[in-house]
Amino acid sequence: MPKLEQGLIQVYTGNGKGKTSSAFGLALRAMGRGLKVYVIQFIKGGFDYGELYIVDKLPNLKLKAFGRGKFVTEKPPNKKDVKLAVEALALAEEVVKSGEYDIVILDEINVALNLKLIHLEKVLELIRNKPAHVELVLTGRYAPKEIIEAADYVTEMKEVKHPFSKGCQARKGIEY
Amino acid sequence: MPKLEQGLIQVYTGNGKGKTSSAFGLALRAMGRGLKVYVIQFIKGGFDYGELYIVDKLPNLKLKAFGRGKFVTEKPPNKKDVKLAVEALALAEEVVKSGEYDIVILDEINVALNLKLIHLEKVLELIRNKPAHVELVLTGRYAPKEIIEAADYVTEMKEVKHPFSKGCQARKGIEY
Repeated sequence: MPKLEQGLIQVYTGNGKGKTSSAFGLALRAMGRGLKVYVIQFIKGGFDYGELYIVDKLPNLKLKAFGRGKFVTEKPPNKKDVKLAVEALALAEEVVKSGEYDIVILDEINVALNLKLIHLEKVLELIRNKPAHVELVLTGRYAPKEIIEAADYVTEMKEVKHPFSKGCQARKGIEY
Repeated sequence: MPKLEQGLIQVYTGNGKGKTSSAFGLALRAMGRGLKVYVIQFIKGGFDYGELYIVDKLPNLKLKAFGRGKFVTEKPPNKKDVKLAVEALALAEEVVKSGEYDIVILDEINVALNLKLIHLEKVLELIRNKPAHVELVLTGRYAPKEIIEAADYVTEMKEVKHPFSKGCQARKGIEY
């Protein structure tokens, strides 16, 4: 049974910290209300992230990650990365269409779009055709302007100060 | 036993969505790694937030909220709000000093500073004197420049587009 009267399109983009974390924080809040959340991660699969170790303990949260455990930067893209991103999008379409989940988080989809792993038109179609009660959350740097136009709620995470520039390493439990 | 070699000072500020959510998302990641997290909420106590309903189910997370269940905007501040914020800061000092928690999140402390509910110098002292392994996270709009200078890691959440300007109401499970 849908719990949100009106689901919106949220976007978290920008070069600052906190895009994926915001989406997970939102998921936590939603779970506190008994909402169902599905997280689909583009590009990220195969990495060792702290949040993956707690997902099983959370009620009403499902997560599936698609990726080869390496950073994707190639242009034109590698066929394997395209295949995984296309699979992720197909799952997203299925999950959104089913209307079973109140919130669907498409983590790093903006990066997948920027790298041309998936077609922008397909994602815009997903947005247009979503059931009214489903909240869609799209994260990642470089959100295309068409996605920003289609969204209701857009936040740019802006890096003001970053410790890696002081020579700090990524830390287990904080950065991953 | 401390798990982080080097704890840093993180700040999430700005007028956009996702400051508290980012902190909770970070807490989730940290819990996945077995880190201990303490969330102290300034101003917010008494409000009905979705995340409060799931806190008990999470391992290694403690939360205490200080507030009267109403938005604090008065200048000069109400004595009751000052008292609660001072209590919150006293708890923060105790928790940070103990070194028992890997991450201490001071949610909305920037707003408490902006409203002059607590003294800036006290918070800077807390930052200076923290045990090396403790990560401190300060959230809220209007982070004073002295806090930004003292921090290692600063992200500004910038509102690009907001649905409330289209007449949407805050929604249970999403906005609270």
